[in-house]
Amino acid sequence: MPYSYLSHLYCPKTGERYPADRIQQLSRVGAPLLVAYDLDALKRALKPSDLIGREASLWRYHELLPVLDEANRVSLGEGFTPLLRLPRMGAELGIDDLWMKDEGIIPSGSFKARGAAVGVSKAKELGVRALAMPTNGNAGAAWSLYAARAGIQATIVMPQDAPLITRNETAASGAQLFLVDGLISDAGRQVAQAVAEGGLYDASTLKEPYRIEGKKTMGLEIAEQFGWRLPEVILYPTGGGVGLIGVHKAFKELRELGWISADQPLPRLVAVQASGCAPIVRAWEARAAASEFWAASSTVAFGINVPKALGDFLVLEALYETDGYAIAVDDADLLAEQRRVAQTEGAFICPEGAALFAAARQLREAGWIRAGERVVALNTGAGIKYPDTLSVEVPLLQPDDRLPR
Amino acid sequence: MPYSYLSHLYCPKTGERYPADRIQQLSRVGAPLLVAYDLDALKRALKPSDLIGREASLWRYHELLPVLDEANRVSLGEGFTPLLRLPRMGAELGIDDLWMKDEGIIPSGSFKARGAAVGVSKAKELGVRALAMPTNGNAGAAWSLYAARAGIQATIVMPQDAPLITRNETAASGAQLFLVDGLISDAGRQVAQAVAEGGLYDASTLKEPYRIEGKKTMGLEIAEQFGWRLPEVILYPTGGGVGLIGVHKAFKELRELGWISADQPLPRLVAVQASGCAPIVRAWEARAAASEFWAASSTVAFGINVPKALGDFLVLEALYETDGYAIAVDDADLLAEQRRVAQTEGAFICPEGAALFAAARQLREAGWIRAGERVVALNTGAGIKYPDTLSVEVPLLQPDDRLPR
Repeated sequence: MPYSYLSHLYCPKTGERYPADRIQQLSRVGAPLLVAYDLDALKRALKPSDLIGREASLWRYHELLPVLDEANRVSLGEGFTPLLRLPRMGAELGIDDLWMKDEGIIPSGSFKARGAAVGVSKAKELGVRALAMPTNGNAGAAWSLYAARAGIQATIVMPQDAPLITRNETAASGAQLFLVDGLISDAGRQVAQAVAEGGLYDASTLKEPYRIEGKKTMGLEIAEQFGWRLPEVILYPTGGGVGLIGVHKAFKELRELGWISADQPLPRLVAVQASGCAPIVRAWEARAAASEFWAASSTVAFGINVPKALGDFLVLEALYETDGYAIAVDDADLLAEQRRVAQTEGAFICPEGAALFAAARQLREAGWIRAGERVVALNTGAGIKYPDTLSVEVPLLQPDDRLPR
Repeated sequence: MPYSYLSHLYCPKTGERYPADRIQQLSRVGAPLLVAYDLDALKRALKPSDLIGREASLWRYHELLPVLDEANRVSLGEGFTPLLRLPRMGAELGIDDLWMKDEGIIPSGSFKARGAAVGVSKAKELGVRALAMPTNGNAGAAWSLYAARAGIQATIVMPQDAPLITRNETAASGAQLFLVDGLISDAGRQVAQAVAEGGLYDASTLKEPYRIEGKKTMGLEIAEQFGWRLPEVILYPTGGGVGLIGVHKAFKELRELGWISADQPLPRLVAVQASGCAPIVRAWEARAAASEFWAASSTVAFGINVPKALGDFLVLEALYETDGYAIAVDDADLLAEQRRVAQTEGAFICPEGAALFAAARQLREAGWIRAGERVVALNTGAGIKYPDTLSVEVPLLQPDDRLPR
């Protein structure tokens, strides 16, 4: 039985096929390439119960991942993150069956580790020696750490406002790091120019086809952790949107494999953005097929500060196909929810993840989330990566002072 | 089959037994109480293969944990952390079979989550409504987050130099937080006084008996992840030393259960301290049974800045029993290793964990670690919790600049 059932790549705009045995970036029409597997063969070879006892990482799904040879796996133990019931927060929101998939419990402290693990592994398999990417911080940290483990040189460009900790992680890995006095779109232009000059693999979001496969495993895990019965609603903080596209792709693959019921509708996917950067929301409200560049974008939830995503049309497609929703929330609201989740459930989550609870509150109040529905918030990272999103006044005692009671 | 095989508590100094069905703190002679299980009964009821397919958290070992009723479990998905091979770092150190147990991949980003999960769960089971503890940061963050999830009020006192992020986590959880212009020993005195006034459960290191049971699971996992064959050497960054005591206890329990061979010696345990705070090293060199208070202690590895540990005699006992070692390393050396591990293996670890690699380098050079031995470094947390241990100079570009090549 092969380690991977990888078949080929294809352009989602034209359907044109591309071989997966060499380096590929965008399709001829400038679209991200997606990965196809031989699902018919896999359906005959594997059943869900075969996964029992496999390692507790995303590699338990290796047949549905693009790495052909296990020896090329670059792993730091990523994936199979906790899926936590949130009873007290659920009671507060009026959503009794509320869950959180906690992607803070992963190497580098953010879900970017999934894309990096699979993307870097496949880059290694294809012989890449040097990669480059623009980032808002977390992806750059994850890719440079995995690249270090793979022995691949990384060149990373991030806005100078990117969280300090992601800068430290990136620098510690030995990557070549640059800050830019601008946005991720400026960093993207600089990387594109350097790539065009040759010698660098472009690891920008969706410019290489494999990061999405790593993100897809969040959907596979949600399905397995719920015993192959999907929830009604999944909320996702949307910047580049790769996780949302990936989760949707996972469910479609599982349906083709017959591992989830073909009769049940797929979960309604909710793209959550910040009011200061909501291009997907604007496009979704207009029922458009793609988004427009969002000028002067700004939000404390740095990871979703993406004015125009390359995969916007795939995100919108996933929302339309699943009867989903796109919603923007204010920074003040998401910061308040960050503290509520810590106080009621003990999870200190990132501001991007906290935005989901502000959205869930609004969607439940509006009746879009219905009583009794099972709802999953996909928290994309750890709160500890953003010390500046929380300011606290703490009393200072002298050693001889008594604790006030 | 019962959920837990908890039997009773006992004083390691006098052997006196204490019932486990009510709140207990120190023994009558002021020693930490340890937890005993009915291992004879468990040996008949459970075998290692019964664990296959269980959840990937420390609760997979619930028979060997003190929580009697699963309903009292307070979990954020902690445990079953990655055990990573480090081939490139191993080559650099001359230790071909080098591994790292990565406790950064856990809720709150430090191994303190294990003690908190089990300690808070048992406190909940015993009816505790309010707890208090002194901390160097990470334990306070973990305990206050788990206490929030349990609905228990937490009072936490930490030195004002404790890492900012741990302060934020603690405050976000809604705990009552105080800083003290002093050391953890000053915080400890203040907590003891507040506890003496009544109404608070003392959750200080080893003053409640259950934190060590959570830490013990690191040893259970190392055994299971290696297929029940233990490594020759385990290095552990030693502050309070609970993890080292716990790992040793785990191995002794597994030996009684017959899950690991009684013929093989247990792993040689190495207590690694910082040169600026090395009471255990000093005591070990003198072959003493207990340590002396280390005055004016100082190290960047904040978690191991513990001038006098309540369980020092148990740590030293574990070192003597396993033919182990105690070694101190300089701050400059551990900071250099922090970067080497990130650069060669892609793991951004905490300074306490980094100290292990400085120690391993010295012990291999001295021949104490022998060629061919399997060595495990127990990294206790994520580097992202200590942004101040790394300072980087990064070039700043303007949006129109080209990347230098």
